[in-house]
Amino acid sequence: MTAHWPTVTIVGAGLIGGSAGLALASRRLADRIIGVGRSEASLAAAQERGAVTETTTDLAAGVAAADLVLVATRVGMIPSLLEQIDAAIRPDTLITDAGSTKASIVAAWDQQHRRGRFVGSHPLAGSHQRGPQAAAADLFEGRLTVLTPTPTTPPADCEAIAAFWSALGAEVLELPPAEHDRLLAAASHAPHVIAAALAAATPAAARRLTAGGWRDTTRIAAGDPELWADILLDNAAAIASQLEQVTATTDHLRAAIEAGDRAALIRLLTHAKESRDALGS
Amino acid sequence: MTAHWPTVTIVGAGLIGGSAGLALASRRLADRIIGVGRSEASLAAAQERGAVTETTTDLAAGVAAADLVLVATRVGMIPSLLEQIDAAIRPDTLITDAGSTKASIVAAWDQQHRRGRFVGSHPLAGSHQRGPQAAAADLFEGRLTVLTPTPTTPPADCEAIAAFWSALGAEVLELPPAEHDRLLAAASHAPHVIAAALAAATPAAARRLTAGGWRDTTRIAAGDPELWADILLDNAAAIASQLEQVTATTDHLRAAIEAGDRAALIRLLTHAKESRDALGS
Repeated sequence: MTAHWPTVTIVGAGLIGGSAGLALASRRLADRIIGVGRSEASLAAAQERGAVTETTTDLAAGVAAADLVLVATRVGMIPSLLEQIDAAIRPDTLITDAGSTKASIVAAWDQQHRRGRFVGSHPLAGSHQRGPQAAAADLFEGRLTVLTPTPTTPPADCEAIAAFWSALGAEVLELPPAEHDRLLAAASHAPHVIAAALAAATPAAARRLTAGGWRDTTRIAAGDPELWADILLDNAAAIASQLEQVTATTDHLRAAIEAGDRAALIRLLTHAKESRDALGS
Repeated sequence: MTAHWPTVTIVGAGLIGGSAGLALASRRLADRIIGVGRSEASLAAAQERGAVTETTTDLAAGVAAADLVLVATRVGMIPSLLEQIDAAIRPDTLITDAGSTKASIVAAWDQQHRRGRFVGSHPLAGSHQRGPQAAAADLFEGRLTVLTPTPTTPPADCEAIAAFWSALGAEVLELPPAEHDRLLAAASHAPHVIAAALAAATPAAARRLTAGGWRDTTRIAAGDPELWADILLDNAAAIASQLEQVTATTDHLRAAIEAGDRAALIRLLTHAKESRDALGS
């Protein structure tokens, strides 16, 4: 698999798209990197940073010459963008996305015969920061990117998209779309809801007494509400189910605290510590 | 208020006690810094780091010459240590502690007439790390230390202990002990329980899909279970009440997600973001 694409188009040159552009440029993996977006100011910022070599707000024009298209917008916009992109590309153009949910995006693509070759992706490299200003050429280095092929995805397409993310420095893992969404509910989406609940439930009077623990635990609650509403609504069932697990575990801890049951509390805290320690700092 | 104490004794030279010793030493605020503990290895590590100038495992001997005693052990040990310290010190020796809860510690001290002058303290500078190895001379710089005098605490004692923490670089705030505990339940103790519940409820299969968000949100779950059990059991009622608030807020978010109510979800996420943004990164 040759890791070079004459023309890569990035639709949505924010944190993820901009970082992909910077990684492509710094590793000399593409000759042209076309940034497509709605905001000329944001596109100009991406070009200023060197994340794209040219920009346009015209989606059809931006993807017409592409060998590979990366859609790195909010989750809710991806299905209709894929529809428009597919109508404008050369046949057999490779397409992928960077959405945090996968089942509905992949299902929307699979609804009809397509000209392009799509494999869903999710680079696990989000942040509470946003925009091309926050982009970094090494954002994907050593991070996991999940590919979500279906039983009908040609293996060569999957290999081509895997080669793209590998070339950006990522480790690649394949999962069925529904399995991806179920696991991400536990690894990312439910934690986001919990962090938001914790931040929202903290009385203003307690804020000046917060320290590193509160700041770490609630950091992702600073994420963009629109972006996260897309993700949470798109993976509702799996997230609701995981939130039930977290609430049940919280209730167990609370019961031990209220009962003064030190042995049970130590057992629960030790289990939590083991789970946390398995991941490193 | 002169910021110099000929002899300071630190009982428990771990993260907090060791950092206080390093700050005293680097700012030349004491001639002798006596480290008292149960573990000779840990005391040797504290002395090796320069956090104390001499060490002993004999509490009575270690505090006999002190002008000021700082008790920086686990919360559960503090009341009985204060009892023993009070029996061994010179009359009128200043004593403070660094416990994360205050009401029960202050109440235990106030139960009888004492020889020493005690004011409860809580430097908001904890960490999931432990021991003298994690200590740092600048741990308290720019951080808040809460003092919890009672109506019978002589103002001069409170000023003396405030001068101690200020000399280490901390900002000082006074609160009644019960008010401290109520606010800390929201700012620190309930977040710890929530982080532990999140870590414990994450299935092993989802662990390899976790990224920065999960790691931030669960970081404090790596804290020492014994140390945290002391804190949680000592402030049970306030923590249980705050956990109810967090669970209720989580339920609101879950209901909006399950109902597909985007407007309500955006409202809740925006409120959470505003609360988080008020604190900075």
